[in-house]
Amino acid sequence: MGMNCNRVEHFEEITMRTQTEIPIHQVRLPPERTLLNKLKQRLSEIFFPDDPLHRFKNQPSFKKFLLTLQYFFPIFEWGSQYNLKLLRSDLISGLTIASLAIPQGISYAKLANLPPIIGLYSSFVPPLIYSMLGSSRHLGVGPVSIASLVMGSMLSETVTYAQNPTLYLQLAFTATFFAGLFQASLGILRLGFIIDFLSKATLVGFMAGAAIIVSLQQLKGLLGIVHFTNKMQILPVLISVYNHKDEWSWQTIIMGFGFLAFLLTTRHISSKKPKLFWVSAAAPLTSVILSTLLVFLLRNKTQHISIIGKLPKGLNPPSVNLLYFNGSYLALAIKTGIVTGILSLTEGIAVGRTFAALKNYQVDGNKEMMAIGIMNLAGSCSSCFVTSGSFSRSAVNYNAGAQTAVSNIVMASAVLVTLLFLMPLFYYTPNLVLAAIIIAAVVGLIDFQAAYKLWKVDKLDFLACMCSFFGVLFISVPLGLSIAVAISVFKILLHVSRPNTMVLGNIPGTQIFHNINQYKEALRIPSFLVLAVESPIYFANSTYLRERILRWVREEEEQIKAHNGKSLECIILDMTAVTAIDTSGLETLGELRKMLEQRSLKLVLVNPVGNVMEKLHTSKILDTFGFKGVYLTVGEAVAGISSLEKAQP
Amino acid sequence: MGMNCNRVEHFEEITMRTQTEIPIHQVRLPPERTLLNKLKQRLSEIFFPDDPLHRFKNQPSFKKFLLTLQYFFPIFEWGSQYNLKLLRSDLISGLTIASLAIPQGISYAKLANLPPIIGLYSSFVPPLIYSMLGSSRHLGVGPVSIASLVMGSMLSETVTYAQNPTLYLQLAFTATFFAGLFQASLGILRLGFIIDFLSKATLVGFMAGAAIIVSLQQLKGLLGIVHFTNKMQILPVLISVYNHKDEWSWQTIIMGFGFLAFLLTTRHISSKKPKLFWVSAAAPLTSVILSTLLVFLLRNKTQHISIIGKLPKGLNPPSVNLLYFNGSYLALAIKTGIVTGILSLTEGIAVGRTFAALKNYQVDGNKEMMAIGIMNLAGSCSSCFVTSGSFSRSAVNYNAGAQTAVSNIVMASAVLVTLLFLMPLFYYTPNLVLAAIIIAAVVGLIDFQAAYKLWKVDKLDFLACMCSFFGVLFISVPLGLSIAVAISVFKILLHVSRPNTMVLGNIPGTQIFHNINQYKEALRIPSFLVLAVESPIYFANSTYLRERILRWVREEEEQIKAHNGKSLECIILDMTAVTAIDTSGLETLGELRKMLEQRSLKLVLVNPVGNVMEKLHTSKILDTFGFKGVYLTVGEAVAGISSLEKAQP
Repeated sequence: MGMNCNRVEHFEEITMRTQTEIPIHQVRLPPERTLLNKLKQRLSEIFFPDDPLHRFKNQPSFKKFLLTLQYFFPIFEWGSQYNLKLLRSDLISGLTIASLAIPQGISYAKLANLPPIIGLYSSFVPPLIYSMLGSSRHLGVGPVSIASLVMGSMLSETVTYAQNPTLYLQLAFTATFFAGLFQASLGILRLGFIIDFLSKATLVGFMAGAAIIVSLQQLKGLLGIVHFTNKMQILPVLISVYNHKDEWSWQTIIMGFGFLAFLLTTRHISSKKPKLFWVSAAAPLTSVILSTLLVFLLRNKTQHISIIGKLPKGLNPPSVNLLYFNGSYLALAIKTGIVTGILSLTEGIAVGRTFAALKNYQVDGNKEMMAIGIMNLAGSCSSCFVTSGSFSRSAVNYNAGAQTAVSNIVMASAVLVTLLFLMPLFYYTPNLVLAAIIIAAVVGLIDFQAAYKLWKVDKLDFLACMCSFFGVLFISVPLGLSIAVAISVFKILLHVSRPNTMVLGNIPGTQIFHNINQYKEALRIPSFLVLAVESPIYFANSTYLRERILRWVREEEEQIKAHNGKSLECIILDMTAVTAIDTSGLETLGELRKMLEQRSLKLVLVNPVGNVMEKLHTSKILDTFGFKGVYLTVGEAVAGISSLEKAQP
Repeated sequence: MGMNCNRVEHFEEITMRTQTEIPIHQVRLPPERTLLNKLKQRLSEIFFPDDPLHRFKNQPSFKKFLLTLQYFFPIFEWGSQYNLKLLRSDLISGLTIASLAIPQGISYAKLANLPPIIGLYSSFVPPLIYSMLGSSRHLGVGPVSIASLVMGSMLSETVTYAQNPTLYLQLAFTATFFAGLFQASLGILRLGFIIDFLSKATLVGFMAGAAIIVSLQQLKGLLGIVHFTNKMQILPVLISVYNHKDEWSWQTIIMGFGFLAFLLTTRHISSKKPKLFWVSAAAPLTSVILSTLLVFLLRNKTQHISIIGKLPKGLNPPSVNLLYFNGSYLALAIKTGIVTGILSLTEGIAVGRTFAALKNYQVDGNKEMMAIGIMNLAGSCSSCFVTSGSFSRSAVNYNAGAQTAVSNIVMASAVLVTLLFLMPLFYYTPNLVLAAIIIAAVVGLIDFQAAYKLWKVDKLDFLACMCSFFGVLFISVPLGLSIAVAISVFKILLHVSRPNTMVLGNIPGTQIFHNINQYKEALRIPSFLVLAVESPIYFANSTYLRERILRWVREEEEQIKAHNGKSLECIILDMTAVTAIDTSGLETLGELRKMLEQRSLKLVLVNPVGNVMEKLHTSKILDTFGFKGVYLTVGEAVAGISSLEKAQP
């Protein structure tokens, strides 16, 4: 390994400098706190990292009331400064997203195996509620593809809409209820960090897998197949497409792929020139109108093209009576609710944060969770299924110049008009155009570039991504997700259970010690071995670390023997990156000191951070290291020990 | 918070010193490695942290063969130097542990609801095999209480020995087979770190809970109850004791508690004076002999005292034909095997390491796993149940002066003699004395002091301890263990998802920057905010860290405003303790830089470690920070930025 080749005897120099210049500093214990105080601080870091109450400090009580109101209903915050200029922008953007929301709503409801009208209901009530509670100004609210897909797939494996429509509706609304309850609880209990465990790598893989499954499922509509599998795995879907070849209808295929090509072209145009965002925003409605007209005009020659058919007119009917709180399917509803709740929350919050970052304002994660949760709770009582902030609609909203959540109100009003007066117009809308809209929407979720970047930067992230991708494709959506989360957690645990240790060397002419692998100019100091541990010391790695440190010592001694160097006297353990320690770790440090002592090697610690120092102290391990066993910097440790040895040779 | 009170303008001083004295060092990338090289290094750190092949380097091929032989059969290592003096010590210690092993073997077999003779079989074959393969010199091998208890409880919940003895035996041997297979696989696949996830805190609670359950179960023998529950939770056991009051027999009670008192007294004596270790070592055999004699002499008046009865003479019969590889109970056998395998492995390795540390030799964890695993595989084919290194027997072995694994051979020979000739002597041995022996053994597993220390040093460790304790008492042994492991893992994840961030200040007269909370003398530097992040930056904490850092900035700006200080210009992020970063973390850093830039604040990084630097580079995030955005130390960053600003004001 050539460990000793750059070992130069500049050790005298350091000692000399240090003795004259650098005083030895003592490592301090952090200020003492009571148990209650510690607990309070720890809990506030866990649950209130953003210190949501800081705005209330030193305010008169009326102002406090106003701030509270504004906190829970952000509409009061921006409402007072609302003006005509803002309204004009919001009106334009609201109408633009409405043109997208209506066809998307109908399509996504079909994705969830629900009647199309539910998708329109879901684009009416939830956006109104969000506009009062939400803190994002650009979020376009309504049904989202991933959550719709997951709800459809999870419920349909047990109950199908065709066989038992009432039960299916009951389960869908109940799942929405639990999704909302779960989301609001996360917000209220400030447990938002749970969704952070869906890493971006996992989501990239998950979304790509889901997009492929969804697209393949749409072959039903695009090819005109009548009998189709309920399963969500790739193989059954492909087999089903192949087995029902006799049902393929050429009229449907030509029209379907035509509109798909049109939609994909407009998407491509808008992605190349962001100013032309309206091209892709208007394309779905244009397709719906064109295809409906076409089918209407050719209605005598197109019996093979399946159409939406009659849709009921009127506003959302109440659905409280359909909520289902006991019986054998309750567990399924709860499970579906939680999974769709997590997924829609993840999308909603990520989208909200993205656009907030672009306009440099803050979106409060926990508050958003409450807003989305309450919106879904209300939705479940008014015939809506799971909704959230959708990426495509928010992007259009942002590009169309939305300024506040009023654009959601405008959109909801447009949907209201549709629900009240325009429903008969959808009678001849062919299902194939909905399939094309869904495919065009989800194809954008396949992000090759992100996957390539994962591969380049972090192989384990890429592995998590691939696992969630193939898990979704071949096993099932919830299992694919669980596998991916497990891999992400395993990655953290692996990092903890096999932490990095390294040898530090002195950068000549300084008091700086650094990794000799990274800094080729760094030099070892004779008779010292400076090691840094790059991780907390826990039960999960304490045994490993003890063995690894002993191996470093063994290797160093072998090197010294081979090169006839000065024999090893002291091991310096740089604890800067040891950010925590538990009882096993403390024991390991004590044992290590004892084992090295038996070989007449000294072990000293450098720079234990606050809470580690505290634990070393309370566990009495510090006493065994003695007054001269802990130093503030590696340089001071080297200088201190050398001068000690000179004093008593 | 009084953040600014110790802010002194010694900033000029630092800048002056730095400009004349300290050259600015560049942060280096680690040397480039190919993907294959990286993977190789990473895998070797994960699976071969102890570098087991280092002894084979530069050796002739015959020596290599010899070393391989010695590696797999440590007996060849110490066998050649074996002499009469060592034999004498091993003979004494071997006979001493035999006197303990015989009654313990019978008792622990009863603990597993197996016939007593299985306990003796298990004290014969496994120790012989271990003496050839094992690397510990002091491990006393045989049945162990915890694994016996767990096997008994897990199997008895489905099948009882009374109802179906053959099936029960089949399942016990099959579970032993799978325990051995699992243990040996862990060793061969070098996955030994899995057992590290049973933290000491967890084990303290688990053992105490198990000890209480076991002791209460022994009330059956100690009170003379005939009909007793098979359940393992505390409540059913207590209810069962109470419900069968009419079966209590006063003769049994008097004799049972008498021997229990005797055994506990001898334990107490030995624990006070380690030199009298033989008092407690000989006590179980003495009790067995005394109680057997007593029952034999009073055999006409003690019909109420249940006795062991007839035991078959002769060596272990083969049991390969009893292994059970298909059928409905296979899953139970595998589960029981894995749980008992993990538990017995944990005990065996911990005990081996403890005594190895006392005598300053090394025990190779993966090799030990293979030895224990093979011993159990062989045991399952020769009518033995799960065995491991037991703490009580090893302690006696160590204190009796054992020098090598030959003491295990001596013990096995003593058991052999017992099996061949002495079995009829156990006919009148009362079950109550076995109950007393078990209670006396397991009571020592309740470690109040360890629990108190956990409470004092680490509250979360104490919580894990309590959860496993109550989980075992009230729910079940495997579930209690799982809960405790989950809490330990949750603790790691919590630490990762809510890492510590802190403000650093300069220690006057030095280039050292430290936590201003821990070091009261540390001073802030005007217009700089120096933050340290104490954790890897992962998907699980990147959102939190971004919000938390923005909050530090906000609070600092509020403080400056309140005190009319010099306005903030630069945020320095000390990355020393950021030991890893993933794609989410990289994105967060980029976003943070952008967000701060929009507020005309500069963000610079200090001392990214090797792999973080590498990832910053490959992800191009480094380019956005620019040439002057990364420094080696905080001191150099402050000096560098200040001089830059002076140059272009």
